[in-house]
Amino acid sequence: MPRSLVTGGAGFIGSHLCERLVAAGHDVVCVDNFITGRSANVQHLAGQKRFTLLESDIRKPLHVPGRLDHIFHLASLASPKDYVRHPLETLEAGSIGSTHTLELARNSGATFLFTSSSEVYGDPLVHPQREDYWGNVNPNGPRSMYDESKRFGEAIAMAYHRQYGVSIRIARIFNTYGPRMRIGDGRVIPAFVTQALQERPLTVYGDGTQTRSLCYVDDTVEALFLLGTKTFPKDVQGVGLVINIGNPNELTMLDLARLVLKATGSKSPIIHEPLPEDDPKKRRPDISRARASLSWEPRVPLREGIKSTIPYFKAASMTKAS
Amino acid sequence: MPRSLVTGGAGFIGSHLCERLVAAGHDVVCVDNFITGRSANVQHLAGQKRFTLLESDIRKPLHVPGRLDHIFHLASLASPKDYVRHPLETLEAGSIGSTHTLELARNSGATFLFTSSSEVYGDPLVHPQREDYWGNVNPNGPRSMYDESKRFGEAIAMAYHRQYGVSIRIARIFNTYGPRMRIGDGRVIPAFVTQALQERPLTVYGDGTQTRSLCYVDDTVEALFLLGTKTFPKDVQGVGLVINIGNPNELTMLDLARLVLKATGSKSPIIHEPLPEDDPKKRRPDISRARASLSWEPRVPLREGIKSTIPYFKAASMTKAS
Repeated sequence: MPRSLVTGGAGFIGSHLCERLVAAGHDVVCVDNFITGRSANVQHLAGQKRFTLLESDIRKPLHVPGRLDHIFHLASLASPKDYVRHPLETLEAGSIGSTHTLELARNSGATFLFTSSSEVYGDPLVHPQREDYWGNVNPNGPRSMYDESKRFGEAIAMAYHRQYGVSIRIARIFNTYGPRMRIGDGRVIPAFVTQALQERPLTVYGDGTQTRSLCYVDDTVEALFLLGTKTFPKDVQGVGLVINIGNPNELTMLDLARLVLKATGSKSPIIHEPLPEDDPKKRRPDISRARASLSWEPRVPLREGIKSTIPYFKAASMTKAS
Repeated sequence: MPRSLVTGGAGFIGSHLCERLVAAGHDVVCVDNFITGRSANVQHLAGQKRFTLLESDIRKPLHVPGRLDHIFHLASLASPKDYVRHPLETLEAGSIGSTHTLELARNSGATFLFTSSSEVYGDPLVHPQREDYWGNVNPNGPRSMYDESKRFGEAIAMAYHRQYGVSIRIARIFNTYGPRMRIGDGRVIPAFVTQALQERPLTVYGDGTQTRSLCYVDDTVEALFLLGTKTFPKDVQGVGLVINIGNPNELTMLDLARLVLKATGSKSPIIHEPLPEDDPKKRRPDISRARASLSWEPRVPLREGIKSTIPYFKAASMTKAS
């Protein structure tokens, strides 16, 4: 059986990835420091023999006894609210955290998947974004702790590949949504869905014409699983394995608000607030490379994904209210 | 007397900065790990009471007993040849090295100057570069270990400013030349001058129409000294103190080769070799902000600066040959 390590494994995407790996028969070591991850996300896995939960902070050197075949480095503060509150932890997850996890890959011979982000494209000047676009990122702006942490993570992963031959893969994840997103983490789906469920106004920033491309978590996780575990021919190693993962179906925030109102049957009004500084206006992945390298593309339509997410937010807001 | 710390103080620019600080009456602590710095660069200062040389690696936490007023964080592998050979050390100088040095600033209350680089602009799409241009940098390309290390350094310096109120200043240094550059470090001035002095062909990459703006080290150091030691009004703190330092006089590499041939009286021919990957084609600082904030601008004309540099390279190539 393959043995896989997931840093940030108790987070939103991490916990779904742990599930997917267990389902594929992997032994899974889940590492989390619980700054934003929650043990409740992996509680249902905790009883299984194949699953080990390790409370540990990757900003310290990581010791994992035994063999490792695949490392998935997801640990990061991922929502703007969180990373603005924890700027140094965010920068350290991508820098020293990546170093420690890469050292583990180097010593164990495991494949190493770094979860980068569409944020490396910043406020893109070309559209849609292909992997060879270099981005438009403010290196010291209010979002720089996240963007530069991810760009640094790419650079150091590639340095380990070039210097030590570590088999690295870089997933640039675009907006992903689904069950286990944290209510109030500042991202659009938790915000809209809980506002709609509670019959409060839906907050749209700016005029709402800025777009996002939203991918359901099952689709994102399937791509991470494929990218992290597949054996690739030599000629695509390195930069060939920097791969956009996301849903190319783009929609405006105003259309998304309307879709959420419809899916929840809510009568909430839509209100407008000022656009935050450095907020990207447009973002859509070109996923040709993922299609070619992983034979992957998203399968879950937005309407369906949102419907699958609503019960989670219903339960979560009831727990929160109780 | 103010007390100042210079990381990378035995390097090319660092050693000139140490000199400048000693001349201004500062007590100076020079920290270097001697990966590329050389004790010979500060030998003439070593006897002085005001100067302390500390062999230490900033990738380990830094303990400097006593008061500190100003920190200048210059430590880095600065030439392409060096940072391609030491990619991880380069990435670590800007990440964990910056963290340790910023912690020292936070604990001591010293001002913190980070030496960023014109490389944060990458292969710029606007010209000349102003500080509010976000750059065009390949986050995982062959130069990414340097570029992303500097971008990360800016992000973490700004995070310490925003989070802890550390008085930070970010100097984006453009090409600088002068005595104590290392022969064979791959940069254009050492290459051209030693080739000319040895009557070997001058190697121009590509067709030689790519431009650089070259600043004499005394000018660069004066700007660093002013930026690091000045007290600034509150309204320019933070992003207002991200400042380009360089010489806006732009010239092509072909014109530079001709100028070096003239200054050295050499009869060497000029030959062409292929342009390296991701080599910036154009680079020129807009220094309006440095003019306004520091009342500074470069004073040494290129012809004069090169003449001041030739004796050093003459002596250095003789030492090397002997």
